[in-house]
Amino acid sequence: MSFPAELSAAAQAVEARLAAAIQALPDSRVRAAMAHGIHGGKGLRGYLVLESAALHDVPREAALNAAAAIEAMHAYSLVHDDLPAMDDDDLRRGRPTAHIAFDEATAILAGDALQALAFELCAQPEQPQAAALTLKLAQAAGAAGMVLGQALDIAAETAATPLSLQQITALQNGKTGALFNWACTAGPLMADADPAPLAAYAKALGLAFQITDDILDTEGNAETAGKRLQKDAEAGKATFVSLLGLEAARARAQDLITEACDALAPYGKKAESLRSAARFVISRDK
Amino acid sequence: MSFPAELSAAAQAVEARLAAAIQALPDSRVRAAMAHGIHGGKGLRGYLVLESAALHDVPREAALNAAAAIEAMHAYSLVHDDLPAMDDDDLRRGRPTAHIAFDEATAILAGDALQALAFELCAQPEQPQAAALTLKLAQAAGAAGMVLGQALDIAAETAATPLSLQQITALQNGKTGALFNWACTAGPLMADADPAPLAAYAKALGLAFQITDDILDTEGNAETAGKRLQKDAEAGKATFVSLLGLEAARARAQDLITEACDALAPYGKKAESLRSAARFVISRDK
Repeated sequence: MSFPAELSAAAQAVEARLAAAIQALPDSRVRAAMAHGIHGGKGLRGYLVLESAALHDVPREAALNAAAAIEAMHAYSLVHDDLPAMDDDDLRRGRPTAHIAFDEATAILAGDALQALAFELCAQPEQPQAAALTLKLAQAAGAAGMVLGQALDIAAETAATPLSLQQITALQNGKTGALFNWACTAGPLMADADPAPLAAYAKALGLAFQITDDILDTEGNAETAGKRLQKDAEAGKATFVSLLGLEAARARAQDLITEACDALAPYGKKAESLRSAARFVISRDK
Repeated sequence: MSFPAELSAAAQAVEARLAAAIQALPDSRVRAAMAHGIHGGKGLRGYLVLESAALHDVPREAALNAAAAIEAMHAYSLVHDDLPAMDDDDLRRGRPTAHIAFDEATAILAGDALQALAFELCAQPEQPQAAALTLKLAQAAGAAGMVLGQALDIAAETAATPLSLQQITALQNGKTGALFNWACTAGPLMADADPAPLAAYAKALGLAFQITDDILDTEGNAETAGKRLQKDAEAGKATFVSLLGLEAARARAQDLITEACDALAPYGKKAESLRSAARFVISRDK
């Protein structure tokens, strides 16, 4: 199977698990907005969970729960980031954002409930290392992780001087890196094994992912991407591309992918899918 | 010690624990808004955790963590409920709401991070029954609990006909009841004991609390309450007072307090503080 086909199959399985968890909630407008919010993502974070779990022989059911949890967390962050008071976006994954398709209050609540659902999925009684998994997810999601990254991103919009490369790297470590780290280390965490190789992989992968996002924001096609582009340039925000230039940004992303693949050495050939994932991250068109 | 003095001492201890957890996060505007959001509450939910834990000989440190968790969750719900797209309130606990004191994006993120922090506190490695505690908190907070109650509340504002008593009771079961239930049963849950008596206590207490909120909204003093009042009447929303009348609402709250105290019978005299809490809930002026 080609990597995109493999990713798509995994994304469908994870989205189905998450959709079932949402469907089990009482019928409400918020539930409908949650279902809207989780639909149609690339599913990369969930895929990373499944692969990291497979490397450590974690049972499929537990892996699917953890994968659904990280996709719920990611979806909540997008629903809230798209709000008028935040990035004010109308389009996401090729469809109206939650506050456009529903309304702002419902979008806020749907994001809130998706975050709660992420923890509910992690803390299931049969989940291996449920408490450790939950703790790490809470740290990755909160004001030392994803929320901090988003806050730094908003602060950057009104900063007197554009951010430095170091500051942008710190911002992205929170905004993207924290959830990538969780996704890639969920497997060893559930198996009570050493997470160091996959943590190193995640760090390089997350940064390469973000550099590629900046490149796509500059060069990409909004229709393919399914979201508004050129936002950062319009806002005069520093990005990896504006700081490094397009070619150097591409080269840096390529180096990071080599670094990510090298980090997988302890797993040998078993980690071939994760190497494909790394190459996909910088070659994708959305 | 009088009950208000006892509650106040407990609230201070819990707020200090929660403030320390927030202070341990990286310095940011979001962190400042989180600290703003948790300050100055009555601390009733945290108090209920401490008392329910004491009844089951749960170590004080674990009880404080769980109490801080529920206060973080409650604070997040208030920060988001006060947002312009939700209840649009300027005043809370006698001070400007988070989106007034900071800005809307920061308030959204601070609420998001407070929710994550609540789970982080529950899932600490030394917390007894950490996974079960987390799972139940996620269920209480999400779209089958608190978020559902809030969504029903918003829907009620634009409903063609005012809600029935049964519908308002269902709404309040989510909006207030779910967190009260968690707070009161955290003790037996951490001790792996039967939660039924405290669940019955919580159910009656939560409803009495909400009826009293409706009475205070009608009759109370905004300065004492530290928040805007008469909102429901202005919005033409049905409340326990509008449906039952003031005297019958008072009588119903009183009956519920009797019911709550009766539910504590298995604990005998050890539960005297929780009986005082129940009496306080309907006699408070804010």
